[in-house]
Amino acid sequence: MRVAFQGEPGAFSEAAARQLLGTAITTVPRATFDSAFHALDDGSADALMAPIENTLAGSVVRVYDLLLESKLTITAETILPIEHHLIGFPGVSLEQLRSVASHPMEKGDRSAAAIAGRRAAEFYGGAILAESIQDNAENFTRFVLLRPPQEVLPEARKMSLAMRLAHRPGALLSSLEPFAAHGVNLLKIESRPIHGRPWEYQFFLDVEAESLAELHSALAAARSAASEIQVLGLYVAARGSFTNARVQQ
Amino acid sequence: MRVAFQGEPGAFSEAAARQLLGTAITTVPRATFDSAFHALDDGSADALMAPIENTLAGSVVRVYDLLLESKLTITAETILPIEHHLIGFPGVSLEQLRSVASHPMEKGDRSAAAIAGRRAAEFYGGAILAESIQDNAENFTRFVLLRPPQEVLPEARKMSLAMRLAHRPGALLSSLEPFAAHGVNLLKIESRPIHGRPWEYQFFLDVEAESLAELHSALAAARSAASEIQVLGLYVAARGSFTNARVQQ
Repeated sequence: MRVAFQGEPGAFSEAAARQLLGTAITTVPRATFDSAFHALDDGSADALMAPIENTLAGSVVRVYDLLLESKLTITAETILPIEHHLIGFPGVSLEQLRSVASHPMEKGDRSAAAIAGRRAAEFYGGAILAESIQDNAENFTRFVLLRPPQEVLPEARKMSLAMRLAHRPGALLSSLEPFAAHGVNLLKIESRPIHGRPWEYQFFLDVEAESLAELHSALAAARSAASEIQVLGLYVAARGSFTNARVQQ
Repeated sequence: MRVAFQGEPGAFSEAAARQLLGTAITTVPRATFDSAFHALDDGSADALMAPIENTLAGSVVRVYDLLLESKLTITAETILPIEHHLIGFPGVSLEQLRSVASHPMEKGDRSAAAIAGRRAAEFYGGAILAESIQDNAENFTRFVLLRPPQEVLPEARKMSLAMRLAHRPGALLSSLEPFAAHGVNLLKIESRPIHGRPWEYQFFLDVEAESLAELHSALAAARSAASEIQVLGLYVAARGSFTNARVQQ
């Protein structure tokens, strides 16, 4: 499988793709999110691994926007702890360093080091000079694997939705009722203004149930309540939930 | 009034403070959000102007987190279009430029220019060599003025809340019901996992009503439904709403 991602080789998105799909995949780096999405349209990739949410920085708004415009769907998710290492030439000591950058180091300069993830060290043949130097250990990113619509796995219990609602008191309430009534749990909700439609709002939801049937029933009931519902994906949750992963450590 | 903000002199947050409060204020620049909040504790500022939401990047998660931990409250808001200009030495032509940075240019180098807001040009005595060069015109930031608790203005119609809810189906629903019942409109909602409390969620809400009385009634009713509600501020909305400002242009 050829998996596109935004960033340089060795980026966290590439590490996420290898964590989820194994190391036999071919990864396709692209400079921007836009061009990473485009890699599926032009046939240079079969799937896209994209960060969608980070415990410190919140949602990756641009990915949500591009996903909504695309014909792709979330087929899987994976959560990666964001650990930064100080990476330099093998054999170099900390005392020999003169500069540290957040981008891949230039080859040949033994006094330069970079701050990046483990995958970057592997890719560029660098050595980890100091491990896990990040100042906040609570840093996890949730990545989603986007593909053209696939058959839903029978083990899928998590669903991501985009809903458009009229901007009036109670509109959100009546669209959430069907989920509660079918025992579906709300994992995440986020509102976004819709450009050019001043009285309508977009809501992004992640929900989870104990069976696929509950999700389908709740969805059918919610469709009649909300102005418009788009299913962004129906997939197997990574290790329970983002929150669980976050507090596991 | 001494108003702290995160960033260099000339930053958008400083421009937001001057837009809301006029040019007679003293602005107090701080390197990080943490130190900007701290400026109120140590008596070096009376208020803090902080970005809380951007149309392209979403919520400023760190500001929400710090606000929640602080004793400060939102007393006003203001919305700024984020326009970037190419700023250089007065009299320099574009052909003479050799480098462009996103940080304030170093003094003395006539071949260097910077990309920043108008306020930066004023502060550093630079000239705008090219105006509004941003590639996305849909870029607005909502800033909030944070102060120690103040008397609420009788014209206040907007309220920001943080709610903690049990993680069970229908928990959000039952806490939103009182708002809908009192005709209070939901402007924004966002969930955040709470560290160390795996089955509880934090929700950030902005709501708006036609009277202060409606807000108070809805709040009282919601308090009995939600596990915990913290009022982050009760204030006058800037030009209607973020969405309106966004589509105005």
